[in-house]
Amino acid sequence: MANILDKISTVADIKKLDSEELNSLCAEIRNCILTKVSKVGGHLGPNLGIIELTVALHYVFNSPSDKFVWDVSHQAYAHKILTGRKEAFQFEDKYKTVTGFTSHRESEHDFFTVGHTSTSVSLASGLAKARDIKGTKENIVAIIGDGSLSGGEAFEGLDNVAEFKSNFITIVNDNEMSIAENHGGIYGNLALLRKTKGTAETNLFKALGFKYVYIEEGNNVNVLIEELQKIKDIQEPIVVHVHTQKGKGYSYAENYRERFHWTPPFDIETGNPLGQNSTETYKRVVINHITDKIHEDNRIVVINAAVPGALDLVQFRENHPEKYFDVGIAEEHAIAFSSGLASQGMKPIAFFPSTFIQRAYDQISQDLCINSNPAVIMVENAGISGADVTHLGMFDIPMMSNIPNLVYLAPANKEEVTAMIDWALEQTDFPVALRISASSIKELKSKLSLKYELNKFEKVTEGSKVAIIGVGNFFSLGEEVAEQLKKKGITPTLINPRFITGSDEELLTSLLENHDTVVTLEDGVVNGGFGEKIASFFGPTSMKVFNYGAQKEFTDAVPLDQLYKKYHLTPEQIVEDILK
Amino acid sequence: MANILDKISTVADIKKLDSEELNSLCAEIRNCILTKVSKVGGHLGPNLGIIELTVALHYVFNSPSDKFVWDVSHQAYAHKILTGRKEAFQFEDKYKTVTGFTSHRESEHDFFTVGHTSTSVSLASGLAKARDIKGTKENIVAIIGDGSLSGGEAFEGLDNVAEFKSNFITIVNDNEMSIAENHGGIYGNLALLRKTKGTAETNLFKALGFKYVYIEEGNNVNVLIEELQKIKDIQEPIVVHVHTQKGKGYSYAENYRERFHWTPPFDIETGNPLGQNSTETYKRVVINHITDKIHEDNRIVVINAAVPGALDLVQFRENHPEKYFDVGIAEEHAIAFSSGLASQGMKPIAFFPSTFIQRAYDQISQDLCINSNPAVIMVENAGISGADVTHLGMFDIPMMSNIPNLVYLAPANKEEVTAMIDWALEQTDFPVALRISASSIKELKSKLSLKYELNKFEKVTEGSKVAIIGVGNFFSLGEEVAEQLKKKGITPTLINPRFITGSDEELLTSLLENHDTVVTLEDGVVNGGFGEKIASFFGPTSMKVFNYGAQKEFTDAVPLDQLYKKYHLTPEQIVEDILK
Repeated sequence: MANILDKISTVADIKKLDSEELNSLCAEIRNCILTKVSKVGGHLGPNLGIIELTVALHYVFNSPSDKFVWDVSHQAYAHKILTGRKEAFQFEDKYKTVTGFTSHRESEHDFFTVGHTSTSVSLASGLAKARDIKGTKENIVAIIGDGSLSGGEAFEGLDNVAEFKSNFITIVNDNEMSIAENHGGIYGNLALLRKTKGTAETNLFKALGFKYVYIEEGNNVNVLIEELQKIKDIQEPIVVHVHTQKGKGYSYAENYRERFHWTPPFDIETGNPLGQNSTETYKRVVINHITDKIHEDNRIVVINAAVPGALDLVQFRENHPEKYFDVGIAEEHAIAFSSGLASQGMKPIAFFPSTFIQRAYDQISQDLCINSNPAVIMVENAGISGADVTHLGMFDIPMMSNIPNLVYLAPANKEEVTAMIDWALEQTDFPVALRISASSIKELKSKLSLKYELNKFEKVTEGSKVAIIGVGNFFSLGEEVAEQLKKKGITPTLINPRFITGSDEELLTSLLENHDTVVTLEDGVVNGGFGEKIASFFGPTSMKVFNYGAQKEFTDAVPLDQLYKKYHLTPEQIVEDILK
Repeated sequence: MANILDKISTVADIKKLDSEELNSLCAEIRNCILTKVSKVGGHLGPNLGIIELTVALHYVFNSPSDKFVWDVSHQAYAHKILTGRKEAFQFEDKYKTVTGFTSHRESEHDFFTVGHTSTSVSLASGLAKARDIKGTKENIVAIIGDGSLSGGEAFEGLDNVAEFKSNFITIVNDNEMSIAENHGGIYGNLALLRKTKGTAETNLFKALGFKYVYIEEGNNVNVLIEELQKIKDIQEPIVVHVHTQKGKGYSYAENYRERFHWTPPFDIETGNPLGQNSTETYKRVVINHITDKIHEDNRIVVINAAVPGALDLVQFRENHPEKYFDVGIAEEHAIAFSSGLASQGMKPIAFFPSTFIQRAYDQISQDLCINSNPAVIMVENAGISGADVTHLGMFDIPMMSNIPNLVYLAPANKEEVTAMIDWALEQTDFPVALRISASSIKELKSKLSLKYELNKFEKVTEGSKVAIIGVGNFFSLGEEVAEQLKKKGITPTLINPRFITGSDEELLTSLLENHDTVVTLEDGVVNGGFGEKIASFFGPTSMKVFNYGAQKEFTDAVPLDQLYKKYHLTPEQIVEDILK
């Protein structure tokens, strides 16, 4: 058979295909996606499951005049292939020409740059209201996975658009899974609706005021087209509940749905990951230590908001299901739940990637910190990175460390990770967060004390003239800077601050005696962070202060070494600055 | 009839009352609340509506062993009266001995200090899970108003507890209103359930997996007791939907439900507010100007999340309903909705009090700023204040100003408020937020330029030695400091930075020529704020920098003058510091 994908230059070309060609197109897209992801990694399961739906959407609607908003947008590979970006999936040398998510800078078919879940309905609601005010007539289509429905923002959006009096189409792509298994009462209702082919009276979407239709054959492109044509141009809010299969068409992804949600490069024949990375991580140190601790202290429980894989919690979940609570994609609830547990003497440890804890700023402040409940928060995958713009982990210090009552700790090596977990669990006065670096584990030359007193920094090496304060995993950068300064005849004082949220005024004041320069190093954005507080402390004195960290900017998949150079974060650059 | 309230020393005493006495108790509580609120202001409608339910809850359950969690807790006055704090409502000289919200520091019957909405179910879920792990048997009861149900955190909580296999009682106190009118699809379902006395098949709570009962006579204490006794000790999650009347028993509050949700002191006979405050506010300046602008530019629309009264938007809502979108208590959605609107060339202006915008940190960062959509955000009621701990407006600078792409403006007087609104609406490159002070309007001695270029500060007065940078409404404090310094022989440079999120490096560098001291003044917490960035900028130089603002702490209804003294924010204190 001829190659159909070659015929698709614009989305208009899809509409010229017959039923059989549409099936072939889906198969070709599937092959592209499978091949690319097997070579460079990426979101596999969600993309394989939604190919037919994507083709059908582009067949029935007229993008970009009709507007698709993809929730999380990790399922938008087929959409990218169909909207002028197929080469980025066909040719290995072009793989990197597109991002892994929708990007408003990449295509007129992408209305938003998205990477956090549960936002599609709200974002699309703005498109719909703008349309109504302008008096145009296009369809607005939000495509949201069942997993994303547990997030509060999705509910707020659905609750609002249910009252719209005009076209608004919410496609619920129900593959029976979140990133991991689903958690929450709504999933009982989705199961009932699937079981009854959408006919059950008890219907969450109808209760919210939506018109509702159910499509069982969510991986049958011709059925999808037929059904979608019926609701195109509908003049009221509707939920189209589509039953799809996560990982469709690749048996390993069908059978191991969690493992193939996002996967590193793998062998297509065996499904096995290529180039196994066995490096020990800080994440592993954390969960191994907590696994040890739960045998000593039955008050410890682990809370997670739907990302056990990304946080290396899968094994813990399997071995200790009674100690593990996955609340689904519900970060706000995760913090409030933890606060409630801690108020009753339990020792909840709530795990988040730095980028997703952003969802819970108010809950950390109000539900947790005002109440001073001693829950423990692990902020993982933290630090400057080459991540996609939506998944940066470098804003948690300004976000969290300026909230009163919170103690935010920055372990400098793996011994300190475990010692700080112990300290956090033993004390009962404060909520305590630990900043767990995304970097690989580094062995320090220094020996740390591992004894903690609130807001007391540790002078690890006593020197003079220059004092270097290296926060968390950047303490090792401080060691490197110190090493190079020694070669220039300066033996600097080296400080491990340990407490991001504190200021050891006694120690800082003592530096004034025989230092004229303080250097702060933090693995995150400088604005609003740790170093600026040191600069402010020394503001009224003659001490010179240099703050190092990232600039306040959104970077998008920029290689880490480029960022370090740009931010003057190599030891050589720092030494040069100081000597100037 | 004897005074029943006098007999109530502990909650156990309630259980000794007969049916008639219970009614009398409710009447006495109603009288206490009405009298107190008429004299000192407070939440009236919510409290009058829930008296019978509160008495019934305390009659049926055994607090604090059974645990009540009150959502927002602005309806907890009767609960306070019944739990050892009645004098604070009976005697004028004791009025101030309790806060307006539940407080875990105030009573063993209050499990959390709460003031933001939609948290009760999540917080209570932690109490329930702790109970199950410990193996105790108490009832956990979350009491949540219909208005609070639109908040995403409430949904996340409900979705999670629906899967619990043990006792969890959610009381939905349905008074048919949020703070203002309800907005969202769920309210259609609540109306249907009220209309069908809970019998409708379409039932949001059942769809989530809850057992469900409906109580129509929510202001009949005896009926409530009878019904609650039936579900006490239930071993599964249940929603008890109680229909109550907001403002019950005081005709003005029954008829003017929005006005009497929260009210300043008023005359009980006429319902008229006492001591009308006609002072012009910055809020009024804002909405008056926007009202003018909508006639010139039909792309402008106003977004608000359920607090039109607090933000002086009621008149605008009445006069321009087609330009006004109240999304209900749904701050996350409000930002994403605004981003969607702005992406289509609309000019949404979203209004929040500083304390509630905390709910939307991630949406500001991801949904709005990564997408660079030029929505406008009004952050009102901002600044250090004597507010309750849950309603402080002094954390928005660290929260917002460290997010890339956002332009955060601080108008220094009312002319600048309007000029900055114009600037924000004219540009299309960035999301722009304006920080609108809670303070009264001050006339400046200086004349400001009102011409803006991104991140350019204005040198309002050229001086030497000392430069004072006064952010927003604290520019006037800068003027006062300058005045006093002049008397000491120093004519300082006075700077209006205008851009909280920017740093005018050229202007700052120029200060090095003939200044040795820079003073920053900001009406918010210093940590993570504006001043620290100035200190960091000058860190490597010999410039002395003094940062003034609030300490990082939660204050709870501490009078403003006390706070100013504590934070060294009087002109005298600042001058003394500088001269030292």
